[in-house]
Amino acid sequence: MTLLFLAPASAVLAFIFAGWFAYSLMKNDEGTDQMKQIALFIRKGANAYLKRQYTGVALFFAIVFVVLLVLGLLGYLTMFVPFAFLTGGFFSGLSGFIGMKVATYANARTAHACSSSLNKGLRIAFSSGAIMGLVVVGLGLFDISVWFYFLNWFYRALDEAARMQSVTSTMLTFGMGASSMALFARVGGGIFTKAADVGADLVGKVEAGIPEDDPRNPAVIADNVGDNVGDVAGMGADLYESYVGSILSTSALGVAAGFGLKGVTIPMIMAAVGVVASVLGTFFVKTGEQTSQSVLLKALRRGVYGSSIIIAVAAFFLVVNILGWENIGVYYAILSGLIAGNLIGFVTEYFTSDTYKPTQNLAASSTTGPATVIIAGISLGMLSTVVPLIIVAVSVMASYYLAGGAVNFNLGLYGVGISAVGMLSTLGITLATDAYGPIADNAGGIAQMADLPEIVRERTDALDSLGNTTAATGKGFAIGSAALTALALIAAYQEEIRLLAEQYKIPFEFNLSIINPPVLVGLFVGGMLPFFFSALTMQAVGRAAQQIVVEVRRQFKEITGLMDGEAEADYEACVDICTRSAQKEMVVPALIAVVAPLVVGFLLGVNGVAGMLAGAAVSGFLLAIMMSNCGGAWDNAKKHIESGAYGGKGSDSHKAAVVGDTVGDPFKDTSGPSINILIKLLSMVSIVFAAFILNNSLFH
Amino acid sequence: MTLLFLAPASAVLAFIFAGWFAYSLMKNDEGTDQMKQIALFIRKGANAYLKRQYTGVALFFAIVFVVLLVLGLLGYLTMFVPFAFLTGGFFSGLSGFIGMKVATYANARTAHACSSSLNKGLRIAFSSGAIMGLVVVGLGLFDISVWFYFLNWFYRALDEAARMQSVTSTMLTFGMGASSMALFARVGGGIFTKAADVGADLVGKVEAGIPEDDPRNPAVIADNVGDNVGDVAGMGADLYESYVGSILSTSALGVAAGFGLKGVTIPMIMAAVGVVASVLGTFFVKTGEQTSQSVLLKALRRGVYGSSIIIAVAAFFLVVNILGWENIGVYYAILSGLIAGNLIGFVTEYFTSDTYKPTQNLAASSTTGPATVIIAGISLGMLSTVVPLIIVAVSVMASYYLAGGAVNFNLGLYGVGISAVGMLSTLGITLATDAYGPIADNAGGIAQMADLPEIVRERTDALDSLGNTTAATGKGFAIGSAALTALALIAAYQEEIRLLAEQYKIPFEFNLSIINPPVLVGLFVGGMLPFFFSALTMQAVGRAAQQIVVEVRRQFKEITGLMDGEAEADYEACVDICTRSAQKEMVVPALIAVVAPLVVGFLLGVNGVAGMLAGAAVSGFLLAIMMSNCGGAWDNAKKHIESGAYGGKGSDSHKAAVVGDTVGDPFKDTSGPSINILIKLLSMVSIVFAAFILNNSLFH
Repeated sequence: MTLLFLAPASAVLAFIFAGWFAYSLMKNDEGTDQMKQIALFIRKGANAYLKRQYTGVALFFAIVFVVLLVLGLLGYLTMFVPFAFLTGGFFSGLSGFIGMKVATYANARTAHACSSSLNKGLRIAFSSGAIMGLVVVGLGLFDISVWFYFLNWFYRALDEAARMQSVTSTMLTFGMGASSMALFARVGGGIFTKAADVGADLVGKVEAGIPEDDPRNPAVIADNVGDNVGDVAGMGADLYESYVGSILSTSALGVAAGFGLKGVTIPMIMAAVGVVASVLGTFFVKTGEQTSQSVLLKALRRGVYGSSIIIAVAAFFLVVNILGWENIGVYYAILSGLIAGNLIGFVTEYFTSDTYKPTQNLAASSTTGPATVIIAGISLGMLSTVVPLIIVAVSVMASYYLAGGAVNFNLGLYGVGISAVGMLSTLGITLATDAYGPIADNAGGIAQMADLPEIVRERTDALDSLGNTTAATGKGFAIGSAALTALALIAAYQEEIRLLAEQYKIPFEFNLSIINPPVLVGLFVGGMLPFFFSALTMQAVGRAAQQIVVEVRRQFKEITGLMDGEAEADYEACVDICTRSAQKEMVVPALIAVVAPLVVGFLLGVNGVAGMLAGAAVSGFLLAIMMSNCGGAWDNAKKHIESGAYGGKGSDSHKAAVVGDTVGDPFKDTSGPSINILIKLLSMVSIVFAAFILNNSLFH
Repeated sequence: MTLLFLAPASAVLAFIFAGWFAYSLMKNDEGTDQMKQIALFIRKGANAYLKRQYTGVALFFAIVFVVLLVLGLLGYLTMFVPFAFLTGGFFSGLSGFIGMKVATYANARTAHACSSSLNKGLRIAFSSGAIMGLVVVGLGLFDISVWFYFLNWFYRALDEAARMQSVTSTMLTFGMGASSMALFARVGGGIFTKAADVGADLVGKVEAGIPEDDPRNPAVIADNVGDNVGDVAGMGADLYESYVGSILSTSALGVAAGFGLKGVTIPMIMAAVGVVASVLGTFFVKTGEQTSQSVLLKALRRGVYGSSIIIAVAAFFLVVNILGWENIGVYYAILSGLIAGNLIGFVTEYFTSDTYKPTQNLAASSTTGPATVIIAGISLGMLSTVVPLIIVAVSVMASYYLAGGAVNFNLGLYGVGISAVGMLSTLGITLATDAYGPIADNAGGIAQMADLPEIVRERTDALDSLGNTTAATGKGFAIGSAALTALALIAAYQEEIRLLAEQYKIPFEFNLSIINPPVLVGLFVGGMLPFFFSALTMQAVGRAAQQIVVEVRRQFKEITGLMDGEAEADYEACVDICTRSAQKEMVVPALIAVVAPLVVGFLLGVNGVAGMLAGAAVSGFLLAIMMSNCGGAWDNAKKHIESGAYGGKGSDSHKAAVVGDTVGDPFKDTSGPSINILIKLLSMVSIVFAAFILNNSLFH
């Protein structure tokens, strides 16, 4: 408890540095009047979208809040749950909102900085990303600390074990709010951004033959707004959810592992250490004038690796100090997560950066047309699942047995949970390397629209291309930690059911064996959910993009002088279409996460639900990695060709690569990165509704 | 036992009808001299390939045979196992070989018959398919009967329970041989056919702008050879494996369920009934002159539904007669499998036939270019997994509980196993509707090459298009039954381990709970295998197709007069490239199935292996359905456009649809349909090497 002050303290530290970075950012110039004008357009569009999204989501939260209240009144839940749910959602949304705000102030500044040097551009884009990274971890730690102090005080009459039990199980529902918000943000934002991007490309690049980000394209502003609301705000909400989810579920496992208060607070203190390390890490990031990916990657890696080393050292003293030498296994578990995270990052880079063979070969496959680009890309994506999966597998086994799982199951589980916290402890800085991608993308768009010199676009393109790789890395972290957390959450679910069955005196047989038919059937159903979810989100993008195509074609036809640059396009119409589509289309996919646990619980009982959670984790992990890496590699293969390979821009190879890139858009920015949230929200909903299902199921 | 004579008797019946159909087939004319010449080319190529393939596979069988012999000498296996393994492989290969032979004699005859009427063409193509269907089920039943009579006699000294135990566990290894052969045939044949197809399309259609199956294209014969060695021979070996696999594993479960000899023989007798019903069903298939898919589908459905009804009625009397009224639940289980099979078939039709919305919408998405075709196709494929998965889920639950699983776990398992037998009991006729597709495809190729009137090609196209749908249906059956069999095989694995642990007195804790880390990690690893496998097979197709592209380009350049039709292409060179590539490339993917259970067993122990089997079944089921349906729908969307929609042949929409079709080729004919074999071979290898792993693992 003594060291717990570190959690709120480092949250404050994160806010201070974020504020300082923001202050420095705003001192930079946005460039020409035209650039300011474009940036304003983008900012307005993003604001308008988020306002609308939050209004829609508020309705969902209100409904679920009432449902939870009713369940609370019926005695199925404690009365804190509905409020924890609300705050989780609020802070997740806030993380995304602040990230979006910063990004929309940084885009033109990055473009302007790129006019003078690549390093300046990188510093601005990266420090804007760092603001978001620090805000996400700061808010996460802040909320967790406040709730923890409050609940710890509220339940002060209970003994330590019972108190921690009540505190952690309430706080876990905080995660359900965060996950719900994150899912809406990722899916809604993902549909918005890719509908605009795909729609703009289809008519602009393919039909009209004008370049990407050409101001004559009416969807170009919507495309740039999309980067901010999907890739930035969606990602912020997403990683906020991953971060607090892993901390909260590990804390809950700390009680069962018998570490009491110490076990509960270690994940929070670990996270606090990570914040400090991330702040230090940001100062390692700088580069020269070379635009090659390998140089830029090294610049960013310095930051991430530096932070990792700091964490690895600090965690050692932390564990020895708090849990003593006899529990040094917990330190090894943290270490295994940290190493696994960095390895997943490296593998993702290997598969998605054109510095390496896979993406180079993918670019080469474009010489035989779009079909081979797609075949090669999908097999690249599938192949790229193998090593991350083995890394996660080794990490689970290592952290389980090193933490003492052979002696005590719960100790092992705690090890697995804390390894996820270790993996995400670098989030402050990895998120910075991730969030800067869409900022660079926007900067490139602004450079193009404002007709800045070619060299500026080259520099922003170099940053953007790297952004594709770091974005894939960030998604790798999110899904990797989700896989580690999955075991923890299924165990938490089982524990919850066990306690409830005692409480309600329900004669109840727990049989989670894979040859128990409800479990096996649950596995199959769970495995199907990510496929179903991805299909729906991709179709949503397709439908929304189709509307954009129709609108852009209409404008090209009806607005005279548009193609000659004499008349201005009606940008708002496209922003509006994307906003409305995203709002409408995000509902059904998001509902899957809420409805599936209830239906499966009702039909197959709690064993079936556990099977479903495991099945969703397995197939979700694979699909998410495959889709994210496919998309990243396609985008970079296209950029590789644009940089002069295989005929360069405008060649047949380039056209083929553009097809791959377009297919990759919904893969990597809509469906793929939402899956980790889906997996966790399924678990959260299962846990929150456990008591209700236990009392209202066909099977016991 | 008294009714068991039905098994060999109906095998003989199947052979008689197959012989009669073959005799009638050969009486038809092959058409013009040119057609005869082309058919001869194709036949020779197919023969040459299979000869080479069988030689290569023989080496693999020899090695595994020796390994099994050694394990037998070390006491890890009974000495029948190596021989059962060999015969399983032999008959699986023979099924494919005979199918291929028939198909290469039927292709020109179908083309010629289409010159006079659509119904005649359908009758010839369909009856050739029926020959193959009957040969597959006949051989399956024949081998199983022979082994059963022999082993039952050999172990005559044992009491019934012990005897059936020994008989069924030996026969199960027969399945390992069949699965190994099937995997090589599917993967090797799949690589051959799609390398030729993709390669021919890439250079021919896309670069040179000549139509499909144009005789000037040097890869055109290889393409047609491919249909026979991949889609026919590969499929024959595959479904032989599914068929005997489900019968054998259900027989093994019959012992544990306490039905003794009766339980063991019912699956065989059920299969015998299916053969008779299939023979009768073939007589229901005929059509008029309308080429619309819905009319043709109805013609085929009459045959399948007719057979299903006969089986449903006969099975009732069978179960009541042999097991008595008190076990009527077993009949319900059979019925649930039969219904599930037909429903999966119907859902597959819905998603892949252009009679219905999904494929029509996919065709419409081609108006906005290849990227939207791919996005729409993949989401269609993902979406199409939902209902089949629910059907299988309901079928597992229904057959488990209806057969009495709530009272006795083994009884329930037997129910699930026999439902798979019920699903596959119509195989004689469903395989006929499936195998006729590639024959029609070949007929179309011959019609084109021999310059027959346009109407002939239209008719063969109509048959071929339907073939895409029925092929997807056949794959649905194969993977659906694999999912049902998966539970049976995991249970068989557990039983085997339990017996062995007793025998070797290994202190051993069985913990198949999904929250036992080795099981969960096994689930993840197993889930990854189908992704890994699909990536490797698709890359193999890509590499082989690339070689074809280079060769065809070379011929276009070097053979003067080729494009004007004055010089003949060097067809054999392309056949040769495909043959060599397929041989080389099939090794690594096939090894996954053999190596993974050993590695996982060594590292994670038997609990981990069980997890792996479940994980592979889940993700394999989903990927297989997704890939097969994507491919079928893309192919038919293209055909839909060729029949005049969205601008018809040569339009931009058509070009976009061709991209989808090309991507779909390895999906539906290489990777997708191999996955069900992969799943089962993993189980078979796990069971055969169980004793070895149990004694040589890091974990117990």
